[in-house]
Amino acid sequence: GNSTFSALGTTIFEVMSRLADQHKAINLGQGFPDGNGPPDIVEAAASYLTSGWNQYPPMPGLPALRQALAAHNARFYGLAVDWPTETLVTSGATEALAACLFGLLEPGDEVVLFQPLYDSYAPIIRRAGAIPRFVTMKAPGWTFTEADLEAAFSDKTKLVLINNPQNPAGKVWTLDELALLSRHVIRHDAMALCDEVYEHLVFDGRQHIPLMTLAGMRDRTLRIGSAGKTFSLTGWKVGYVTGPAPLLAPVIKAHQFLTFTTPPNLQHAVALGLNKDDAYFIGLADDMARRRDLLSAGLRAAGLVVLPCAGTYFLTVDLAASGIAMDDRAFCQHLTEKVGVAAIPISAFFEVDAPTHLVRFCFCKRDEVLEEAIRRLGTGI
Amino acid sequence: GNSTFSALGTTIFEVMSRLADQHKAINLGQGFPDGNGPPDIVEAAASYLTSGWNQYPPMPGLPALRQALAAHNARFYGLAVDWPTETLVTSGATEALAACLFGLLEPGDEVVLFQPLYDSYAPIIRRAGAIPRFVTMKAPGWTFTEADLEAAFSDKTKLVLINNPQNPAGKVWTLDELALLSRHVIRHDAMALCDEVYEHLVFDGRQHIPLMTLAGMRDRTLRIGSAGKTFSLTGWKVGYVTGPAPLLAPVIKAHQFLTFTTPPNLQHAVALGLNKDDAYFIGLADDMARRRDLLSAGLRAAGLVVLPCAGTYFLTVDLAASGIAMDDRAFCQHLTEKVGVAAIPISAFFEVDAPTHLVRFCFCKRDEVLEEAIRRLGTGI
Ligand SMILES: CSCCC(=O)C(=O)O
Ligand SMILES: CSCCC(=O)C(=O)O
Repeated sequence: GNSTFSALGTTIFEVMSRLADQHKAINLGQGFPDGNGPPDIVEAAASYLTSGWNQYPPMPGLPALRQALAAHNARFYGLAVDWPTETLVTSGATEALAACLFGLLEPGDEVVLFQPLYDSYAPIIRRAGAIPRFVTMKAPGWTFTEADLEAAFSDKTKLVLINNPQNPAGKVWTLDELALLSRHVIRHDAMALCDEVYEHLVFDGRQHIPLMTLAGMRDRTLRIGSAGKTFSLTGWKVGYVTGPAPLLAPVIKAHQFLTFTTPPNLQHAVALGLNKDDAYFIGLADDMARRRDLLSAGLRAAGLVVLPCAGTYFLTVDLAASGIAMDDRAFCQHLTEKVGVAAIPISAFFEVDAPTHLVRFCFCKRDEVLEEAIRRLGTGI
Repeated sequence: GNSTFSALGTTIFEVMSRLADQHKAINLGQGFPDGNGPPDIVEAAASYLTSGWNQYPPMPGLPALRQALAAHNARFYGLAVDWPTETLVTSGATEALAACLFGLLEPGDEVVLFQPLYDSYAPIIRRAGAIPRFVTMKAPGWTFTEADLEAAFSDKTKLVLINNPQNPAGKVWTLDELALLSRHVIRHDAMALCDEVYEHLVFDGRQHIPLMTLAGMRDRTLRIGSAGKTFSLTGWKVGYVTGPAPLLAPVIKAHQFLTFTTPPNLQHAVALGLNKDDAYFIGLADDMARRRDLLSAGLRAAGLVVLPCAGTYFLTVDLAASGIAMDDRAFCQHLTEKVGVAAIPISAFFEVDAPTHLVRFCFCKRDEVLEEAIRRLGTGI
């Protein structure tokens, strides 16, 4: 088998979900909501199945969804997007990432990326023949310095890949951080790939700022979104890419040979979703912030130190600050098997220099599930 | 952009489908049925959507579908398959191919493949860093010789990729051809990847023989199937891979970072499909053979010479033998724009030494559609 992939384990999310099932633990590991999604969107998907079209849709996506995506970019970020040349529908954000990386990179290119990071980034970059250069962000604020950027960028930098809002950090990048990064991207005449799947999961009145909206970035940035995260339908595997036509063109070529297209009924239903009024998106963020607060209070009541969380589905607990001597992997295994709550060790999000005192808990669950997890944590820790 | 992908055009299927739409031509180009799939399977998918689970299914696929796939291999081919280690569900056969090629190949490896071939094969092999070596099959029988194999295999041969039944050739590989190939694969200690998406579209009492069933091949072969083709639901993008655990393991790693997983409601419904009784599969092949005969008779009546077709969705017309001097691309454009019937130039299925006198027509369409196409061909040519 291929050496990059053969060297890999199964993704930590799958490993912890299986362990959770095995021990009947409450799964606060893998990031998925446990509801069934907005009923109107789900009903629309069902009715397109039975009365619609079950054959190949157009390879880059249904026009209705691509138009809705362009309108969504205009409404939320003031971005003018030409849907026929600047949008692409993919089979989830994971495929979007793979299509962008295989489509943009050439063997020998360097990619700057920020730890902690989602576990598909580095393997796909390596499989594309490119070389990852890591900037390590420091907890609790998950900050980085200009010197960190200078050390990571080089003459070979082709691309920078960021995740904003950032999993597992619960970080929403500030305008200052984005501006600092954009200066380096422009100075090196590089491109930016922005995994913005949590764009609508930003709390406490903060704004999500796409890197694409900064001066000089519109023509060198691709941004990825996810219907799974925006409509709490992670199983649907509908994602999308927005960006300038010259960057998107080779990505569309990669997409046509990675999956070719995505089920048309799901695309139709997601188009309805993106066209929902502002109340839906505000309600989603408010609801998720409420769950964050519920779980955060429970974790604190169990004696755990919780880091700030400005967005995403995830809270971070600091084991060291909580007076727990176990490392993150041992703690997660213990918690799943003995306490009945599964979480994710944050060292799994690092390629080098991993901290081992941080654990991620997912809060996008029903109240009764969070409450039972809190009860178990309260008696078990 | 990446040089392999930047050099590519849009896939010929998409190009011809768009041209057909533009000219209101009957689309006998891209290979998709124009019905809405088996109602019971479609209803099941709709009901799982509204009453089931819309979040991530297990990454390698739902156990119900993987079990059905193993049972299907036993029933049709006498293959004993251990579903937890020897099956994988993918987002269509296109993703299955990409996962297998990225998962198995290392830069510098050679891959033997047979022209005419599906247009994703060579670009993905090249993007995986490997080198394609082509065996060119000769119409009308689409045959090859042992000398052709000897010229293509080398010390660097890692993999052979075949499509059986073969698009666009309408060819079903004979036992002799498979045995000859298997000897070379074994002699070079290589692996085989078999795109068998048309496994149930084999006509006139012929049997589909998976290369995997030949002596010495079970442990070195992966075979790919497609719910899109087997249940006439090409838009669903549900595919699957069967094969020995050591070969499948790196493919599963590639899959987890290409798409991660596939919508659970579609997987549930496809499991029902694979468990259908023999009558369904016999009926599918009989029905498709009837359509082949209908279109074949119409093409002949229009003065066109039609090559034999033992399987798949496709008939080949020989322009030279029909006394038509245009090349295949010019003829397909003329036919779409002026006659109102879209077809695919077979030169698009060749990487080198393309014949330019052959055109592919798709017959998996409703009778009234085929009849109207025949009417147009009869008056237009
Ligand atoms: C694709 S499984 C992982 C889901 C997720 O984004 C996470 O848990 O971080
Ligand atoms: C994925 S579009 C092509 C469909 C097909 O298999 C064909 O027409 O050959």
